[in-house]
Amino acid sequence: MLFTNIDYLDSNFEIKQGFVGTAKGRIVYIGETDPTYAASISEASVYDFGERYDGSGKLLIPGLYNTHTHAPMTLLRGYAENLALQEWLHTKIFPFEAKITDEIAYPATMLAIAEMLRFGTVSFSDMYFFTDARIKAVLDSGIKANLCHGLLVFDEETTYEQLSGRELNDRYVKEYHNTADGRLKIDLNIHSEYLSNPKVVAAVAEHAQELGVNTHAHLSETRLEHEECKQRRGGLTPTQYFESLGLFNTPCTAAHCVYTEPQDWEIFVKHGVTASANPVSNMKLASGFAPFPQMLDAGVNVGIGTDGMASNNNHNLFKDIYLFALLYKGAAGDPTLITPAQALAAATSAGARAQRREDCGCIEVGKRADLAVLDVTHPWMQPVNDQVNNLIFSAQGTDVVLTMVDDVVLYRDGVWPTIDIERVIAQTQKASDLIKSQL
Amino acid sequence: MLFTNIDYLDSNFEIKQGFVGTAKGRIVYIGETDPTYAASISEASVYDFGERYDGSGKLLIPGLYNTHTHAPMTLLRGYAENLALQEWLHTKIFPFEAKITDEIAYPATMLAIAEMLRFGTVSFSDMYFFTDARIKAVLDSGIKANLCHGLLVFDEETTYEQLSGRELNDRYVKEYHNTADGRLKIDLNIHSEYLSNPKVVAAVAEHAQELGVNTHAHLSETRLEHEECKQRRGGLTPTQYFESLGLFNTPCTAAHCVYTEPQDWEIFVKHGVTASANPVSNMKLASGFAPFPQMLDAGVNVGIGTDGMASNNNHNLFKDIYLFALLYKGAAGDPTLITPAQALAAATSAGARAQRREDCGCIEVGKRADLAVLDVTHPWMQPVNDQVNNLIFSAQGTDVVLTMVDDVVLYRDGVWPTIDIERVIAQTQKASDLIKSQL
Repeated sequence: MLFTNIDYLDSNFEIKQGFVGTAKGRIVYIGETDPTYAASISEASVYDFGERYDGSGKLLIPGLYNTHTHAPMTLLRGYAENLALQEWLHTKIFPFEAKITDEIAYPATMLAIAEMLRFGTVSFSDMYFFTDARIKAVLDSGIKANLCHGLLVFDEETTYEQLSGRELNDRYVKEYHNTADGRLKIDLNIHSEYLSNPKVVAAVAEHAQELGVNTHAHLSETRLEHEECKQRRGGLTPTQYFESLGLFNTPCTAAHCVYTEPQDWEIFVKHGVTASANPVSNMKLASGFAPFPQMLDAGVNVGIGTDGMASNNNHNLFKDIYLFALLYKGAAGDPTLITPAQALAAATSAGARAQRREDCGCIEVGKRADLAVLDVTHPWMQPVNDQVNNLIFSAQGTDVVLTMVDDVVLYRDGVWPTIDIERVIAQTQKASDLIKSQL
Repeated sequence: MLFTNIDYLDSNFEIKQGFVGTAKGRIVYIGETDPTYAASISEASVYDFGERYDGSGKLLIPGLYNTHTHAPMTLLRGYAENLALQEWLHTKIFPFEAKITDEIAYPATMLAIAEMLRFGTVSFSDMYFFTDARIKAVLDSGIKANLCHGLLVFDEETTYEQLSGRELNDRYVKEYHNTADGRLKIDLNIHSEYLSNPKVVAAVAEHAQELGVNTHAHLSETRLEHEECKQRRGGLTPTQYFESLGLFNTPCTAAHCVYTEPQDWEIFVKHGVTASANPVSNMKLASGFAPFPQMLDAGVNVGIGTDGMASNNNHNLFKDIYLFALLYKGAAGDPTLITPAQALAAATSAGARAQRREDCGCIEVGKRADLAVLDVTHPWMQPVNDQVNNLIFSAQGTDVVLTMVDDVVLYRDGVWPTIDIERVIAQTQKASDLIKSQL
């Protein structure tokens, strides 16, 4: 596609205007002149861009990265609100989740993906079960994802092998890692310090190194978790504990990080751990306000995630970007914290780095053509005093009119070419109703 | 209009399904059966409802009330972000505002109104200058508003008369209060404790009583303001100080209330003061987290406002409702705080009460037909486990497809019948650019 005369967000998160051409999965041309005109013939002009997309009134941005999700939980949207954490988990969330099957997880994941694509997300890091269903949904939909298969450990004795972890992860990695031209990646999972044990953490860490894949874990989400870990693990924070067992020897995405401490951030920087901010989830479950401004200052790679639908209740990363830019100002009493560029980097390039997609996450020649187009003519985006500020603070997720992954359009003007949206909605509603009838 | 087979939010904030008929400015029929069928002839059937509106896939809600705005500041959207409060005010906001004129304020207010109508807001409480321009915008657009004319006092000596306050407010109230069938109301303004003096507060209080109108003030927005007031005013909080001068003898809307204390809430309850929550503004300017859950428990009437565009940057009350429902959970560490019903009441009936519009703010026969319709078929509203939860936590402001004030459609499917939106946008952009060129 050739986006003509379009405003675009460059890799410094500044707005430029020009022509952006994509071909064969990548961004192949960026310039002020039309590459198809004879007068401006360049190397790029040998590409057949295909459709010319009129950029007037539009803003082209890098597609968004969602660094922490539990996609099939879309089934639980709006199911349980305003409950204390333990009551919420034990009377509502766990009983519902116990009824989910692979058959149900497929449309539920497709619905999550449809919502992400609708709101400009091109890739997500997902931790859950029903991995075959999630793999199929990623492959069928055309989105990118790093999926990890959930591993729950309830005691100190159980081994990785006893849980069939090695066997399952071997299969997922060998059959699916880096398939679909690299769209699908497999990570290994440690749920958290409190739902794992040292033997399993060490085994997963070693297996991840052996397979050359990333890991993904919950970390220091609540004060209780953080403090109990210190008690159980000889004074080590979850971060120190995981590091001591080698979990960060391959890149890891650590979700939440609300109670991490300065020495934890040094470990993150040393090992290239990505901290996934989940601002909505942390407010909704009253987990607290994470020190992301300080973590960014310390040089930590910080991404943004929506978390599961039961604690968000959208996969609209524009809401999370907005909150990421706002929330820590209020919490710290300092309105200068988190710049628009920091928020945009967290939602794009930092997420790509987290997923080890070095050729993704910004608008540069040679990068993958993972893009989103916003209509910026709406009244709520006017007047334009600073389009980057408008993008962070005024844009609505619904302003996205086109989402493209590897140069393939996956959402455009109300249509998802790879998803039978009505069927997916009907199946998800039916499944959700069925589960509730059994509870 | 007759909304047929539509899901609607009743006055207990529960979802019902049925027929809702409007005529002559009011809701005249609510029932499970079609009032135009012979078999169900009732008193309502004598009304000519006009258009039948197919309610399938739609949700009808009471129109939203925005209890604290500075509408012409739309000009400053995205103009100044991430600055410390004093720098923000003195180097950016005040110099820009000094260049605004009545001519510019009109389209800027129209743009604010267009955005509010787009997102389901039917009425707003606005504090600013350029009151003739704002009055014209309210009258021309068809929206409801309580407008107050800004009164800034910089010393302890100046009187209300010296500021021409009495003269101006007499004119606004006599010419415009309760005009347009009550759509437009005039309130009197005290900016805040720190930009007023006791003589002016007492004079405004007396004048408001004499005229029988409401007042609107900023109150305890920052810790500094709250503590300095105590020092200056013999230990009195801003609330106690205003009460002592009679400002609450007519209904008052007090914006922000971040640092109010339990004894202040008792005063609010005693006098029917409405506290306007401005969650986005309080985060963006790092003012703090207001004790709204406790104020609701104490029986205070709590509304929700967007504040000015420079501290929000939208007039999309759906974002503020969402944050109102989320933020205080996170701040207090308690996920059970603020129920969906409390959030919806704050955005509707509490706002109507604040504006002394007793016949507005909920869907009941006899109430004014101030309504918004949402398309609830989008993927991000599925599955439906609880439509009220979806409305609070999953709906996007852009889901609104129709907004009606006094039975008159003011927004529908991308069209504002009373606003030349392209002209308003062009004028606002031009004015904003002109001002910036002069700074």
